[in-house]
Amino acid sequence: MRIALDAMGGDHAPEQIVEGTFDFLREVPDQDITVVLVGHQDVLRETVRKYSFDPHRIHIVHASDTVAMDEKPARIVKTKPESSLVRAVKLVQSNEASGVISAGNTGALLSASLFLLKRIPGVRRPALCPFIPTPGGGFVLCDAGANVDVRASDLVQFAVMARAYSIHLFDHPQPRTGLLNIGTEPGKGNELTLKAHDLLAEHIPDFVGNVEPRDLFIGKADVVVCDGFVGNILVKFGEGLIKNLTEWAKEKLKRHPIALFSLPLMRPALKDLAHDMDHEEYGGWPLLGLNSVAIVCHGSSSAKAIKNALKTATRCVSENLINSIATGINAHLDISQEDHALATS
Amino acid sequence: MRIALDAMGGDHAPEQIVEGTFDFLREVPDQDITVVLVGHQDVLRETVRKYSFDPHRIHIVHASDTVAMDEKPARIVKTKPESSLVRAVKLVQSNEASGVISAGNTGALLSASLFLLKRIPGVRRPALCPFIPTPGGGFVLCDAGANVDVRASDLVQFAVMARAYSIHLFDHPQPRTGLLNIGTEPGKGNELTLKAHDLLAEHIPDFVGNVEPRDLFIGKADVVVCDGFVGNILVKFGEGLIKNLTEWAKEKLKRHPIALFSLPLMRPALKDLAHDMDHEEYGGWPLLGLNSVAIVCHGSSSAKAIKNALKTATRCVSENLINSIATGINAHLDISQEDHALATS
Repeated sequence: MRIALDAMGGDHAPEQIVEGTFDFLREVPDQDITVVLVGHQDVLRETVRKYSFDPHRIHIVHASDTVAMDEKPARIVKTKPESSLVRAVKLVQSNEASGVISAGNTGALLSASLFLLKRIPGVRRPALCPFIPTPGGGFVLCDAGANVDVRASDLVQFAVMARAYSIHLFDHPQPRTGLLNIGTEPGKGNELTLKAHDLLAEHIPDFVGNVEPRDLFIGKADVVVCDGFVGNILVKFGEGLIKNLTEWAKEKLKRHPIALFSLPLMRPALKDLAHDMDHEEYGGWPLLGLNSVAIVCHGSSSAKAIKNALKTATRCVSENLINSIATGINAHLDISQEDHALATS
Repeated sequence: MRIALDAMGGDHAPEQIVEGTFDFLREVPDQDITVVLVGHQDVLRETVRKYSFDPHRIHIVHASDTVAMDEKPARIVKTKPESSLVRAVKLVQSNEASGVISAGNTGALLSASLFLLKRIPGVRRPALCPFIPTPGGGFVLCDAGANVDVRASDLVQFAVMARAYSIHLFDHPQPRTGLLNIGTEPGKGNELTLKAHDLLAEHIPDFVGNVEPRDLFIGKADVVVCDGFVGNILVKFGEGLIKNLTEWAKEKLKRHPIALFSLPLMRPALKDLAHDMDHEEYGGWPLLGLNSVAIVCHGSSSAKAIKNALKTATRCVSENLINSIATGINAHLDISQEDHALATS
């Protein structure tokens, strides 16, 4: 199995990308797994030289260009064909790799993957599906930002895809699926969620109904579906709130010298907390619904995030997640077709 | 000026409602302001007896019934005409009070207010507008849950109304307005926000464009508009995250005895932080767009929240917020009509 890794994508590329690769190879000794680092060969050769490694497990594929974090993603395959990101996706397209990972421009990876890698037959909209850690154990959220305007039947597809991901990657044999909503009663919500609630109840096993934001923290569902606009707002708001609460607390501590002085005594507990909440432990955001494995990592990814994304990617491939998703989508093709007929009639 | 207060609404009614009323009357000695406590007269007479007060500043209006927190709000005026909540709203309808406050069933207060109190001419959808405290100073969010499906022109009306509220209640002479979105560039967002961005840019002074969730914390905007589904999810998620982070942190502390032992040293700083984040400091969620002042308080409201909601209500009345909103709405009637023509054509 070969995984293509955009070695030039992200705030800490290529150093942290390469370090994460070596950490992964040490922890996963399977000789059949190879990582293909895609990026400028001079830079990458220089970077990997610092490590001792088995040359059979690392390949370098040259790409002369890069995609900037703020670059317009829409036509990235045309505008940056020689970029490390596009070249990495093309390795999957040509079957030279089974999956692709990038911590670079998220929109560009979405755009290139949608354009170059085929969708699973019947999937209307591939969707992003991060794992969100919580005190209740965490859940996968789908869609977290790939589709900002969706139909009710799309939410059923998101549920099918995210359930398969939860079963394979998080060892939930029967994941409970919830619909993110502003109230728990079936009659609550907007046009989209009202319609989606009934479709999900009919078609998704172990559907637990509407989940309110507060339910997210107490483990009420293992899979939570929503449109990509709401999902993206939610994830970004959570990140921002945690970051700013921490800074807000620091400001307050500065005004109370005794509290500031005692902070080091807290450190082990705070470190524990930070570890449990650390999104880098959970291996990136898979883009579900494509015929291949594609994983988006946070721009700020360190070696740990890359190592865990590589673990996620190899597990998705070896457990044949794509096949499970295809089976699930195939069993529910009728809903999508009905909904499409309604929307276009 | 008389403010009608649903004395039986909320988890801590009537004790905390009555206590908040007396705290308010002590802090605001203006003899022209009277609070009308609406609820069962035997219960209320018994409760107010504990306090020494000027009988001219408190009235009790009898209501034999109450609205439960989980009651269906849709036809509450018909199903519970003798409830303290509906009676309180009716006092405004009959001009016996200038504003109404309830910490009871939010949906019921929305429903009764929309049904009994007239809308300001031209307002299509009244909207909830809480103040959200942040390290950057905070902002008002509109809509936080009254309208789950909206049009772009509704977001312009939300901006007009929330700006007036920000000018009057938070002393921002020129509040900056932002559109909640998943990216800052003008081309980002879903169908609704793409269209709303251009309308807001054209019609709202000091429009700062799209604001991402992370921008909310750094004071990029004083007024943030969004549809009520997203706004409600955001507020509830923030509440849930803060509550659960606190509990998560406590759990971690228990496993580190030294940290737990040093927690009291932190207390003054944590108390400072909790004070700044305390929504009870900010006097409830006004429902903007009605011809009268109506304020929703959190079900868990203590005396402090009630006291501050009374301050907000009296200030809205004395500064004639309704008039400012009416002037603003009137200046932008054309957008709403155009959008409506488009939607129905």
